[in-house]
Amino acid sequence: MSQKIVFTNDIAATLDTIVDEAAPNRVFVITDVNVDYFVLSRLSDCKTVAGATRIVIKSGDINKNVDSLSQVWKQLCDGGASRKSLIINIGGGVVTDLGGFAAATFKRGVRFVNVPTTLLSAVDAAVGGKTGINFNGFKNEVGAFCEADAVIISTRFLDSLPIQEVKSGYAEMLKHGLLSSRDEVAKLLAFDFSHIDHELLLSLLTESVEVKRRIVAEDPHEQGIRRALNLGHTVGHAFESLALKRMSAIPHGYAVAWGTVVELVLSHMQMQFDSVLLNAVADFVRTNYGAFAITCNDYDAIIDLMHHDKKSHNGELNFSLLSAPGDIHIDSICDAETVKAALDIYRDLMHI
Amino acid sequence: MSQKIVFTNDIAATLDTIVDEAAPNRVFVITDVNVDYFVLSRLSDCKTVAGATRIVIKSGDINKNVDSLSQVWKQLCDGGASRKSLIINIGGGVVTDLGGFAAATFKRGVRFVNVPTTLLSAVDAAVGGKTGINFNGFKNEVGAFCEADAVIISTRFLDSLPIQEVKSGYAEMLKHGLLSSRDEVAKLLAFDFSHIDHELLLSLLTESVEVKRRIVAEDPHEQGIRRALNLGHTVGHAFESLALKRMSAIPHGYAVAWGTVVELVLSHMQMQFDSVLLNAVADFVRTNYGAFAITCNDYDAIIDLMHHDKKSHNGELNFSLLSAPGDIHIDSICDAETVKAALDIYRDLMHI
Repeated sequence: MSQKIVFTNDIAATLDTIVDEAAPNRVFVITDVNVDYFVLSRLSDCKTVAGATRIVIKSGDINKNVDSLSQVWKQLCDGGASRKSLIINIGGGVVTDLGGFAAATFKRGVRFVNVPTTLLSAVDAAVGGKTGINFNGFKNEVGAFCEADAVIISTRFLDSLPIQEVKSGYAEMLKHGLLSSRDEVAKLLAFDFSHIDHELLLSLLTESVEVKRRIVAEDPHEQGIRRALNLGHTVGHAFESLALKRMSAIPHGYAVAWGTVVELVLSHMQMQFDSVLLNAVADFVRTNYGAFAITCNDYDAIIDLMHHDKKSHNGELNFSLLSAPGDIHIDSICDAETVKAALDIYRDLMHI
Repeated sequence: MSQKIVFTNDIAATLDTIVDEAAPNRVFVITDVNVDYFVLSRLSDCKTVAGATRIVIKSGDINKNVDSLSQVWKQLCDGGASRKSLIINIGGGVVTDLGGFAAATFKRGVRFVNVPTTLLSAVDAAVGGKTGINFNGFKNEVGAFCEADAVIISTRFLDSLPIQEVKSGYAEMLKHGLLSSRDEVAKLLAFDFSHIDHELLLSLLTESVEVKRRIVAEDPHEQGIRRALNLGHTVGHAFESLALKRMSAIPHGYAVAWGTVVELVLSHMQMQFDSVLLNAVADFVRTNYGAFAITCNDYDAIIDLMHHDKKSHNGELNFSLLSAPGDIHIDSICDAETVKAALDIYRDLMHI
């Protein structure tokens, strides 16, 4: 992993240094309308941002699609991008995923830098080399493994985010905690969203990115242990796809929070994951995220959607489960009846 | 390079063995309407082809586009393709380029096998890991470097091809000869298209694939010597793009043949490439390929198109030139006036 991760709140100077070192012939900034309006104005001291050709996509996960991708390719093409150019993705997960995929594929690969502006993209999307778009109603159905040359992680823009965005990113941090240790989980469950301590959040974020980086370095192409990072995601993606079908998208991190509860229930049922800790996580999620409303009439649709998951094969439902925090069992198979039982318990825990 | 290249005319048995070893959960065959009609009927003894889900795209370079790509992604998605599936691309360069890119990006990567059915795709597209589509009027503007797991090279289907198709592939073989040695060039220039010797053609093809394989192995991501393979292509792609703008596509190999003449003229002007050999190659090309008709009114458009080439940066025109067969000078810069002078000489040599 030659990827450079810089933790800093001096984004302008850091970006200018990275660009000077890369010596590209042209620089493109890919962002979305919201970031363009609310964030880039705060980077007016950045030579790189001021001088770059700007490509602005529509915001929202619904626009992480092949149409937006084609528009980005077209603007790169019309703007004279070459293999010696540099692309800078400034934004949330939609921008870093789609911009990264555009960079990975334009002229078969242009270098890129990620500057995540949300907690979710800082902790999740900007590290690990997964790029892509939604397709045919499925999340990240098309994409490439391609690492950014550099990632700049900061908390500078988090104060501009709605609390829901911060919570959305925090769900991935909770997941990383569960993949790490009982102590880490305890620290994360003690966090108070009504009085956000930014110093504490930055230190938790740094630890969280480190957990992910360690796992990805061991297994960059998701052949084995990297699938641990899918904890909460098999169910979470199914919830997201179900919400898309209902034409009412839910934040990715919320879906992961709820999916994590279901998968910890499965971990309890199949791997004796501690029920006290399961209840503590479920309480934290219910208090801070509410619940994704499902009835037993949705179970078959949810299970169908799980079959579309990239980790599922031959009709089996495949999960990353835990026997305890940090004790990971990838490729755990559960049958549909067990998953339905877990969804029943999820509804009890969520009070729905 | 772990890619397996099998030279055989027993395609059915070879494919069945490769598929048995790969043990995929599902097999997809990507092909085009012509190959589906004319070639797959000749593989009725192949268990793999009979049992696979077939995805058929429109034929022709004009359909190597984002619409066809989206259709392939959709059919993979609807057909339940997963990361444990196997895609088999059976066809010419359009199928192997587009099918390879679809495989490289669907769920961030599905394994694939190439079975080229034309001489051009056998010698060029099926080896080397370049996948992609045309975009915004430019050839291969979007794509990925991704190697097929295996390539099956045969001459079994060449007898079903129009002679133009065979000549198109032969142009790439001529290019490989120029990158190899004077002896190899002499053998290639002696070939008689009016009485095709299939045994001789297969032996020349085997040597040609070996030249390419050797160069790609040295430099898989085209950072250096691999750009030697672009001999004839900077001009050739510009001719192809110009033809597309005129709404009258020309075969890729023909464009390469004509582009090679122009670039050998540049090699003579800048690198003292032997004028006797230049004339011999030009005669061979004129006799067997005719000429791409241009006037001096087209020069500016051709030069503009060259600026879009993936190897061009900062407005410089970048070529792979030769001081002699096998003596390669990548990153040779020529100014626009020199290129115009070379186009004048090309027109003289081509008698236009």
